[in-house]
Amino acid sequence: MIRVVAFDGDDTLWHNETIFSMSQERFEEMLAPYVDPKDLHARMLETERRNVEIFGYGIKGFTLSMIETAIEVTEGRVTAAELRALLELGKGMLAHPTELLEGAREAIVEVAETARVVLITKGDLFDQESKLARSGLGELFEKVEIVSEKDDARYRRVLRDLDVAAEEFVMVGNSMRSDVLPVVRIGGRAVHVPYHVTWALEEVDPAEVPEGGWWRIERLDELPALLSSVEG
Amino acid sequence: MIRVVAFDGDDTLWHNETIFSMSQERFEEMLAPYVDPKDLHARMLETERRNVEIFGYGIKGFTLSMIETAIEVTEGRVTAAELRALLELGKGMLAHPTELLEGAREAIVEVAETARVVLITKGDLFDQESKLARSGLGELFEKVEIVSEKDDARYRRVLRDLDVAAEEFVMVGNSMRSDVLPVVRIGGRAVHVPYHVTWALEEVDPAEVPEGGWWRIERLDELPALLSSVEG
Repeated sequence: MIRVVAFDGDDTLWHNETIFSMSQERFEEMLAPYVDPKDLHARMLETERRNVEIFGYGIKGFTLSMIETAIEVTEGRVTAAELRALLELGKGMLAHPTELLEGAREAIVEVAETARVVLITKGDLFDQESKLARSGLGELFEKVEIVSEKDDARYRRVLRDLDVAAEEFVMVGNSMRSDVLPVVRIGGRAVHVPYHVTWALEEVDPAEVPEGGWWRIERLDELPALLSSVEG
Repeated sequence: MIRVVAFDGDDTLWHNETIFSMSQERFEEMLAPYVDPKDLHARMLETERRNVEIFGYGIKGFTLSMIETAIEVTEGRVTAAELRALLELGKGMLAHPTELLEGAREAIVEVAETARVVLITKGDLFDQESKLARSGLGELFEKVEIVSEKDDARYRRVLRDLDVAAEEFVMVGNSMRSDVLPVVRIGGRAVHVPYHVTWALEEVDPAEVPEGGWWRIERLDELPALLSSVEG
């Protein structure tokens, strides 16, 4: 019996990683006079990996990491005007329209006919709330949980707050690391809907992937049929 | 009957504004060769007021605002090394130990003997969770709500999630704007515990302050006696 179906937000219901990719490309173009784009890419990832422990996920941390990387790779030769442009790039990301993935609204509405539907999304509180508001999907969810990390402990707490048992819970999202692995580990089930880009920090070792407890679909419009077949 | 007592975090249970004030002073010292500290202070506040709509509250937004202000007031003459130092100032704030206010733990423990106690704190999700973890107070709260804004709608939602009526709810905090006014407006009660510094964006017009529904104490250790007298 599936009582609660939880959706991830970024890259599951609305586009997100494409905005980061576009900004990363723009960042590389802007600093091309100083540094080879490939090298900048690697250095930026290094900075992000180091800073995620301090900043958490989200655009503000990404913007601070761009500024830090730009100063480091140019050994301080980057100009204040160029850094100012990086700041504006970050603000532009925060103001970017929330573009829904195809079939997102329909999938939520259809699933809501037979189960409670909630949103469990990771990242910056202010930015996630703002994106949710602009998505127009807010009123479809019984509850919205914005979390700083999606790990076993956090899912256990969310399930307790929702008063649902793990075996009655299904998580739907694009990240194996955040939406599938921890949920299956605590006894829940998951549906993986891959997005065409995956951030390096979300990648998983194939050896970690469990054999059962989860399914993969190509598009959200396959979700209602999958859930019906699971319930048999 | 008081069923739920909610505490604010920043500047109610642990020091926060002092960390911002210290960083602001350091920022003004660093840019003193370019700009009069008083002017910088005013310009920074302007930037913060503008950016709070885009960044929300918290240290990452503050750091980005420092960088933006530094570039603007120096008309781009600030060096990359100086901007790098501002970045490090921000990181230092994020890593700053959480210092409890005197009597914070004792007040929570004593109130918990007769009411459910929760934490309702505003700001950056990742930073607030990290501060709460370092405060050692986490296990004292039945529930922790980290919100991006403390307005009427948000308090109504929190009360609904806590399954408590407004008249059974008391909010304890240092901000008239965030902890007292909205709670009294929705029919709850509040206890104001002033902190020695108030951020300009938290200040309120005295005309907005309601006559009843709230009390003011000087220190948290007066809270248990106040609540007992209210319950009479």
